[in-house]
Amino acid sequence: MLKKLRALLAEHNLYAYLIPNKDPHLSEYLPDHYKIMPTLTGFTGSTGTMIVSQDFAHLWTDSRYFLQAEQELAESPFDLKKLDVPHTPQHVTYMVEHFPEYARIGVDARLLSISSFKYLKKQLDKKNIEIATIDLLSECWKERPSLPTNPVFEHALKFAGKSRGQKLSELRTQMKERGCQYYLQTALDDIAWTFNIRSNDVDYNPVAVCYALIGEEEATLFIDSQKISEGLKAKLRAEKIVLLPYHALEDALLHLPKKEKIYVDPKQLNYHLYQILSNQMTLVEDLSLAYFAKAIKNETELNHIRTVMVKDGVALLRLYRWIDANIDKGTVTEVAIGTRLKTFRAKQEHFVGESFPTIAGYNEHGAIIHYRATEKTDVTLQRDGILLIDSGGQYRDGTTDITRTTALGTPTSEQIRNFTLVLKGHIAVSKLRFPKDTHGNHIDGFARAALWQYGLNYGHGTGHGVGFFLNVHEGPHSMGRGATAYAKASFCPGMLITNEPGFYLDGEYGIRIENILAVKKCMETDFGEFYEFETLSWFPIDKQLIDKSLLTAAELDWLNKYHAQVYEKLSPHLEEDEKAWLREQTSVL
Amino acid sequence: MLKKLRALLAEHNLYAYLIPNKDPHLSEYLPDHYKIMPTLTGFTGSTGTMIVSQDFAHLWTDSRYFLQAEQELAESPFDLKKLDVPHTPQHVTYMVEHFPEYARIGVDARLLSISSFKYLKKQLDKKNIEIATIDLLSECWKERPSLPTNPVFEHALKFAGKSRGQKLSELRTQMKERGCQYYLQTALDDIAWTFNIRSNDVDYNPVAVCYALIGEEEATLFIDSQKISEGLKAKLRAEKIVLLPYHALEDALLHLPKKEKIYVDPKQLNYHLYQILSNQMTLVEDLSLAYFAKAIKNETELNHIRTVMVKDGVALLRLYRWIDANIDKGTVTEVAIGTRLKTFRAKQEHFVGESFPTIAGYNEHGAIIHYRATEKTDVTLQRDGILLIDSGGQYRDGTTDITRTTALGTPTSEQIRNFTLVLKGHIAVSKLRFPKDTHGNHIDGFARAALWQYGLNYGHGTGHGVGFFLNVHEGPHSMGRGATAYAKASFCPGMLITNEPGFYLDGEYGIRIENILAVKKCMETDFGEFYEFETLSWFPIDKQLIDKSLLTAAELDWLNKYHAQVYEKLSPHLEEDEKAWLREQTSVL
Repeated sequence: MLKKLRALLAEHNLYAYLIPNKDPHLSEYLPDHYKIMPTLTGFTGSTGTMIVSQDFAHLWTDSRYFLQAEQELAESPFDLKKLDVPHTPQHVTYMVEHFPEYARIGVDARLLSISSFKYLKKQLDKKNIEIATIDLLSECWKERPSLPTNPVFEHALKFAGKSRGQKLSELRTQMKERGCQYYLQTALDDIAWTFNIRSNDVDYNPVAVCYALIGEEEATLFIDSQKISEGLKAKLRAEKIVLLPYHALEDALLHLPKKEKIYVDPKQLNYHLYQILSNQMTLVEDLSLAYFAKAIKNETELNHIRTVMVKDGVALLRLYRWIDANIDKGTVTEVAIGTRLKTFRAKQEHFVGESFPTIAGYNEHGAIIHYRATEKTDVTLQRDGILLIDSGGQYRDGTTDITRTTALGTPTSEQIRNFTLVLKGHIAVSKLRFPKDTHGNHIDGFARAALWQYGLNYGHGTGHGVGFFLNVHEGPHSMGRGATAYAKASFCPGMLITNEPGFYLDGEYGIRIENILAVKKCMETDFGEFYEFETLSWFPIDKQLIDKSLLTAAELDWLNKYHAQVYEKLSPHLEEDEKAWLREQTSVL
Repeated sequence: MLKKLRALLAEHNLYAYLIPNKDPHLSEYLPDHYKIMPTLTGFTGSTGTMIVSQDFAHLWTDSRYFLQAEQELAESPFDLKKLDVPHTPQHVTYMVEHFPEYARIGVDARLLSISSFKYLKKQLDKKNIEIATIDLLSECWKERPSLPTNPVFEHALKFAGKSRGQKLSELRTQMKERGCQYYLQTALDDIAWTFNIRSNDVDYNPVAVCYALIGEEEATLFIDSQKISEGLKAKLRAEKIVLLPYHALEDALLHLPKKEKIYVDPKQLNYHLYQILSNQMTLVEDLSLAYFAKAIKNETELNHIRTVMVKDGVALLRLYRWIDANIDKGTVTEVAIGTRLKTFRAKQEHFVGESFPTIAGYNEHGAIIHYRATEKTDVTLQRDGILLIDSGGQYRDGTTDITRTTALGTPTSEQIRNFTLVLKGHIAVSKLRFPKDTHGNHIDGFARAALWQYGLNYGHGTGHGVGFFLNVHEGPHSMGRGATAYAKASFCPGMLITNEPGFYLDGEYGIRIENILAVKKCMETDFGEFYEFETLSWFPIDKQLIDKSLLTAAELDWLNKYHAQVYEKLSPHLEEDEKAWLREQTSVL
C-alpha cells in the first residue's frame, strides 16, 4: 500500500502526502472505512498523523502511545515522531523546517477542520509550500472497508423525553434568531440527538454515518437509505424529513439558493465542505445549536440517568465480587476483567454495549492514562498492589462512565496518602456551589489543590460532558485548566460533567476516582442564581486507601453520606450476600 | 465651554463629538491637562465618556457613580447615561442606534486605544457614520491647565535594585529576539521603571509625562527638559539617553527608517500614534516588554517591600489607636480618617504620598466599592457598626495597599458569619500552592467558594499586581473570573498580587480583607515547579468579627500564625502602650 501511495505521489507530482487519522465528520472514533493508520503503518493507537514522501514515512503520536508505537512500528517503514504536547500540530512545524521551498504536498481536505487547514496553509506559506487537496487513499487502499451499513433504529421518545419534531422546532427558532435559512449538521452525535436515531456505525458511539441539512420547513438526512426500515422512513417522511444518499450532500449544497444564510459550527465542519459553502452563501459560524442543546439534559433524560447509574453500579459490584472470588485461582487478568465486566453490564436491562474500551490497569498499567490491556500486555492480578478500573456502558436509557481504584493487598502509606489527596479533590468539586456563568476552568483547581499542596498533580483534565445514549465524551463544557473552546461553555442546569481527579506514578501505579455529576440550580439570592452538583454514580470508594486523619470533618461527612446513599440505591437490587459485602464496603468510616 | 464646543461642531461640519476621559498614554489617573470631564460636565468621578451634539450632551458612567453623577449633573446640560456593565462601550451602541445614517462625528484619536478605535469604526460603519479624527478640546478649553512641569527625580539604585543600563540591555536582548530595532514605550509607568525616574505629574502614580523610544544603541526620552536637573541630564547623556521635547515624538517616528521593525504594545498605544507607525514601518505587537519585566520584582525590591510593609502597618496601627481614642469625642469622621492616616504614614521614612485616595467607608458607605468620602457625604463614626478602610502609601522603597474591616460596636451574627466567610476565602488563597503556568482565573474561585456556599459573592476581582514605588494597579497578571488580557499573565516568582475578597450588602455595610502577597517558588518535584504565596502585609484581622466555629483547624492555625507574625514584625517599632494593644489584637483565637 505504501508502494502504491508513493507511485501516486509521483504521478501527481507531490513531494509528500499528509494523512490525518480523521473522518469527514471529525469524529473521536472512526468508522472502519477511515481506519487507514493500522493498515498503512501497523500502529493501532487512537491518535496519529502520517506523512509519506518518496524518502520517508513518519507517524506522529503522543506520549501515552510511545511504548506501544515503538513496538508496533518496529517492522514498519514508518518512523515514530514523538509529540511533546498531545494534539498539537508538530508535524506542521516539521514540514516547515524540513521540506524544500516550493514543494507541493497533498492532503484530503475532508479530513481537516477549517482551523487545522488554515493553520497548515499559514505555516506552509512561510516556505511557499503548495497544498493540493486530493484523496489518494481511495486509490491506493485496495481492501478498504465500505462505509458502514448498520441499521438505524429509533431512540424512543420515552428515553429521549423530546420528539424530533420539537427539537427541530426549537433549533429552527434559533436559526431564525440568527437570520439563517439553513443549518448544516456534520457531527454524528448532533444528528443522532436531533433526529432521535441511533446506530452502530462506529465503536462505542451509537451513531449513524450521515449528514443533516435543516431548512425552515424541511430537513434532509443524507444517509444510505438501506439502513432505515420502511416504517421509520414513513415516519420521517410524515415529519417532512427527506432522505437522500450520503454522497448527495455536496450536490445539495451546491444547489442551495445563493444569498441565503447557513448556520455551521467551524469546529465540526471539514475544510472541503467549508470551501463549497463559502463560495455559495453566507456562513453564520458559531457553536453548533444541537451541540449546546443536547448538553442540557431534560427531566426525562435525567430520571433515566438516575436509574441507569444504579444498574451500572450493580454490574460493577458483581465484577468486584467476581475478582475477589477468583483472584486466588490466578484467573483474574486485566483482559478478563474487561470481558467479565461487559458480561455483567449486559445482564442489565437496555444494555447496548460499552461506552469506551475498559481501562483495567493493575499497578504500573494504572499509571498509563489511556491503558487498554491486550494479550501482549495482559497481567494476572494478585492479592497485592493497586487496581484502577475505568469503564462505562451504553444503555438505551443512558450512558455511564465510572472509575474506581482499589487496593488488592495492603497499600503503602504513600499510596494511602495519595489516594486520600485525590479523594479530597473529588469531594471538593462534588460539594461546591457556584454562581451562574462559572466555567470549568474556574473549578478545575478545586480538584487539584490537595495534590498541589504536596507538589503533586495529574496530566489530564478533571472532567468532560457525557451524552445520553450517545458519545461518552460530549461538549461544549468541560472541566480543565485550558481556556474553554466555546464561549457558551459555562455550566448550566441539566449538564452532566465527570469529576475525575487522579494521580499517576510512572511505572508504579495509578489512582483515579470518577463519578458523573449533574448541574442543578440550588438557590437564587440577591447575588444571582447559584448551582450545585448532584452526584449520579453509585459505587463505594475503597476505605482501605483512605487516611481519615487527612480528611476534614466536612469531607468525612460527605464520604459517609455518599456511602449511605450507595447502599440505599444499590441494595434493593442485590442478593443477600452481595448486600452484606456492600454493607461492609459502605460502613461508616 | 459647551457653547464654544458646539460652535466648533458647526464649523467642522460634525454631527457630534466624542470625548473619552483619557490621556494619550491611556493612563488610569489623568494629568490635569486632560481632566476635561469636571470642567465640561461638573461630574468629578474617575471614569466617564461624553458625547456632545447641537441637541444633546450625554455622559456615560458606571453604577458606582450613579448617585454622585445624578447630584453633580443636576444643574448641568449633561444627561446621565447609566452603564449596565462597567468599562463597556455602550455609548457606541447608542450612537449606532440613535445617530442618523451618514452622520459625521469627531474624536481625538490620541485618546483612544487601537482596539477602542477599531471597535468604534466597525460599529459606526454599520450605519455609514464617518469618523473625523480631530482635537477640538484644545480650541474650546480656554483655561486648560498646561502639561505638568514637575521635576523628575531619580529612583535610586539602592531601591530599584537594577540600573537603567541593565534594564535597557535586557530589553534590547528581547527586542533582538523579536527582530526589532526599536521599542516604543507609551505607558508612563513602563518608562519610569525602565529609566529609574519618578515624578509627580499625576495624582497617586509617581510618574512623569513622557514617551520613550528605545533603539539598539541609543534611547530617547521625549520630555520637557526643564523637568530634569543638569546633573541627571549629564548622567543620561553619558548612558546614551537622548532628551527631546515631549511633542517631538511624532516627528521622530516619521523619520524612523522604513523597513525596520518596532515593538509596541497595542493595548498601550493610542490610535493616532498607531496610524503614524503603521504607515511607516513593520509593527511587532505584543505585551510591552517592560510591563512584564517590572511585574517580576527583584530581590532588592522584595527586601524593601518587606520593610515598607512593616512601616505601613505601624502607621495603620496608629490610625486605629487614634480612632479608638477619639471616637467618643465625635471628631472621627470618614474624611478625618483619610487625613489622619496620611499624617501617620508621612511620619514613616521615605514616604512620598498616598498610592490612591483612602476609602474609609462606615456602614453603608463600606458597601460602595470605590467610595471616597467628601464633605457632602462625610459621617461621624460611633461605637457601633462596621468600618472598612482601604488605603495605601507611596514610599521610595515600595508601594502599599491594605484593607481592614473592623467592628466599632457589637457586630450582628450575620456580619460575623459573612466576615468569617470572606476570611476563609482570604486564607484559602494565602495558603494555596500551585504549579507553574497557573493564571489568576484558576485561583479566583478559592477566594469565593466559602461565600458561594451561602449564595453570596462579590462584584470585583480578587486581586491586582502592585508596582514598586509606582502604580498601585499594575499588570499583566491579576486574579479574577474573566479571561486574562495577556497570555503571559500566569503567576511567576517575584510577582506581587493583592488578595482582597469582600462582601457588600447595599445600604448596610461592606467587608474586605486585603493583603499583598508575593509569588515564590516552594518546590520542584517530578510534577514540575510549584509556587506559593508569601504574605507581605502585617496588620491584625479583627477577631470580634470571626466565628471560630466556621474555621477549620488549618484555617485557625493560619490566622494564629499570621497574628503571631504581625506582633513579631510590628512590635519592635512600637511604644509600650501600642505593644499592649497589638498583643491583645493578635492574641491566640
